Amino acid sequence: MALIVHKYGGTSVANLDKIRHVAQRVVATKDQGNDVVVVVSAMAGETDRLINLAYEINPDPPAREVDMLVSTGEQVSAALLAMALSAMGHRAISFTGGQVGMFTVGVHRKAKIREISAERIFEKLREGAIVIVTGFQGVDIHGNITTLGRGGSDTSAVAIAAALKADLCEIYTDVDGVYTADPRLVPSARKLDTISHDSMLEMATLGAKVLQSRSVEFAKKYRVPLRVRSTFSDDPGTLITEETDTMERTTITGVTVLRDQARINVLDLPNVPGIAAKIFKAIADENINVDMIVLTENNYGGTDISFTLAIGDLKTAHETMQRIVADVSAKGVTVEKDVVKISVVGIGMQSQPGVAAGVFDALGSNGINIEMISTSEIKISCLIKGKDVEHATRVIHDRFKLGEAATAKVEEADA
Amino acid sequence: MALIVHKYGGTSVANLDKIRHVAQRVVATKDQGNDVVVVVSAMAGETDRLINLAYEINPDPPAREVDMLVSTGEQVSAALLAMALSAMGHRAISFTGGQVGMFTVGVHRKAKIREISAERIFEKLREGAIVIVTGFQGVDIHGNITTLGRGGSDTSAVAIAAALKADLCEIYTDVDGVYTADPRLVPSARKLDTISHDSMLEMATLGAKVLQSRSVEFAKKYRVPLRVRSTFSDDPGTLITEETDTMERTTITGVTVLRDQARINVLDLPNVPGIAAKIFKAIADENINVDMIVLTENNYGGTDISFTLAIGDLKTAHETMQRIVADVSAKGVTVEKDVVKISVVGIGMQSQPGVAAGVFDALGSNGINIEMISTSEIKISCLIKGKDVEHATRVIHDRFKLGEAATAKVEEADA
Repeated sequence: MALIVHKYGGTSVANLDKIRHVAQRVVATKDQGNDVVVVVSAMAGETDRLINLAYEINPDPPAREVDMLVSTGEQVSAALLAMALSAMGHRAISFTGGQVGMFTVGVHRKAKIREISAERIFEKLREGAIVIVTGFQGVDIHGNITTLGRGGSDTSAVAIAAALKADLCEIYTDVDGVYTADPRLVPSARKLDTISHDSMLEMATLGAKVLQSRSVEFAKKYRVPLRVRSTFSDDPGTLITEETDTMERTTITGVTVLRDQARINVLDLPNVPGIAAKIFKAIADENINVDMIVLTENNYGGTDISFTLAIGDLKTAHETMQRIVADVSAKGVTVEKDVVKISVVGIGMQSQPGVAAGVFDALGSNGINIEMISTSEIKISCLIKGKDVEHATRVIHDRFKLGEAATAKVEEADA
Repeated sequence: MALIVHKYGGTSVANLDKIRHVAQRVVATKDQGNDVVVVVSAMAGETDRLINLAYEINPDPPAREVDMLVSTGEQVSAALLAMALSAMGHRAISFTGGQVGMFTVGVHRKAKIREISAERIFEKLREGAIVIVTGFQGVDIHGNITTLGRGGSDTSAVAIAAALKADLCEIYTDVDGVYTADPRLVPSARKLDTISHDSMLEMATLGAKVLQSRSVEFAKKYRVPLRVRSTFSDDPGTLITEETDTMERTTITGVTVLRDQARINVLDLPNVPGIAAKIFKAIADENINVDMIVLTENNYGGTDISFTLAIGDLKTAHETMQRIVADVSAKGVTVEKDVVKISVVGIGMQSQPGVAAGVFDALGSNGINIEMISTSEIKISCLIKGKDVEHATRVIHDRFKLGEAATAKVEEADA
């Protein structure tokens, strides 16, 4: 008998029929003799509906009240799933994040999990119940409802699995695993059977939407075996696990695309120490994450600083830069909206020279302009124009033959 | 400066425009220098929508999960109102029942308020904020969400007003006060400027839908001045207050109709002690309230027992009676669905003989059959067929000239 955490996303609980289908999957797992904890998202479209109401009544709604509002979405789907399980003759009980002691810290709408007191869940499991927990939300020390940010339900599920020391955490979604690239962009994209935490982390951070990156961090930190699979098929999906010797060490695991990016350029700054710090402190004070940063000397003896960020933060960041432009003695600020970040990810990359060159050549020889570059040991990211995204993904996927199952073992083939 | 509690029902917060309108009323009260606490219902239709989802996924949904589900309705309207107030430049904060320590006891869907820890509300009022609280809901000692039963938001509002020792509790609704009869049934019905707690309590219990009776009990017990008025007009509405010497002591305050009643007849019981107790214990064990009870000897030497109850409880009660029919040696059980209870209410009644006779004569001489009767010091109720309800209301309203403002002072006129 194992303790298994299931997580179902919004499309999996989009209507009552789908909730009944989820109930059947949960019962099948329970009937195999397992204890089951289920984490649910809001019914597809519900969070957007609520967010739209918020912005319609207040163009700048207080974040605390947005959390109060949108957290109802998961509460509804959790209660309905409990009812569906009860209709099938099973004991089930639903809890809000607050009710299971999912304590968070940090700002509303982007809270971070600090602690989960698993006692209430264990108590109900011991009584034989299936426990359902609302994803995406917790409470702060004052009892205010907080949310973890978009996609936070994955993180809730893995954090709960970690707190319960669960044997497995299964993320049920509308795709049947992790692919070498988005199959809608690259028809030859191949599903991976296993992937290491590190590669998955990079891919999630860099735009593979199948899992929220924070959930992968949690899984890695607490060694939670994590599986991504489809609610609507019996495909075993992709297992995300610690790196092992038997794991396929391809140079590149996959290609990902991060959309909804924007770029800000602060022009012609004086070449004095502390200027960059001033700029990024002002941005950090607004609680905005910047991603890629490029600092270049321009032809007039000054310095240009460009950085990218999520487009949702662009308005605030742009206003912040305009406010301090005189203070940092810059000539001006420009913004660019239609950019995406394309990344190639793979643990094998660190032992393989020439990967970066291969990426740049694939893009360059196909007429795709690279605006910014950032690299780490296991990924290379390029900022490109939005219009180039499909073409770029295909040429990189082709260049590294990611569609072929056993390109594999690049260490042996190329070394 | 006063502390004023406003309560807005579902029709008052039915959409974003109406929520903005509510925000304006709240701000107007705040701008007069008052502290304001607002209790809100779910947006009109939302509770029904959620209840329908529950019964669609499970014909017998667990009450705990129904509470978990429907309590989201008030959470949404509370958060949206906070956003609307914030958009108007006011500090506002919304709380769930649980967050303000609204502790309840008793069963789910029919919980009763035990205690409110007002500290959190006072803290926010001291900070200058407008405090919004979800109506209709609380938490039990385990932190499970509970609801107070339909119309419970009135009770929440008065209970909060009592806990805060508020100077006034205003119930905003879609009618502009308490009338002598339902104006849709009796066009000549007259709005009352004041009414005593006791008369209001009887009228609410007996079907006047403008206020939930439990809220009036609370108001009476804790001496909360209560006003019922329209969200959509400036009419001062009806003040419900302690009985005073200057209060108009009409014989009859009003006529009310309680619909959705049903009658169960248990036929030909043996004439032995303890039979009635067995029947009503079985009903009480199902947590069902019975209303009118008539016990009569029949022509065969046995006893018939008839009682009324809310039609929502009929199925369970009928099944319960069928289960014990042999045990109590009854001949059978019949049910009747299309019945309503019409009541005449007034504190003046206790000093006026002949009121009952007047009611029975008004109905009888107009061909309206009375099936059951129950009386108290300040009301007379008759069970009649549903088809007779409009006719019956009018003939009683006319008989006691309730449409005329100064029938009044019946003590002097008739004594």
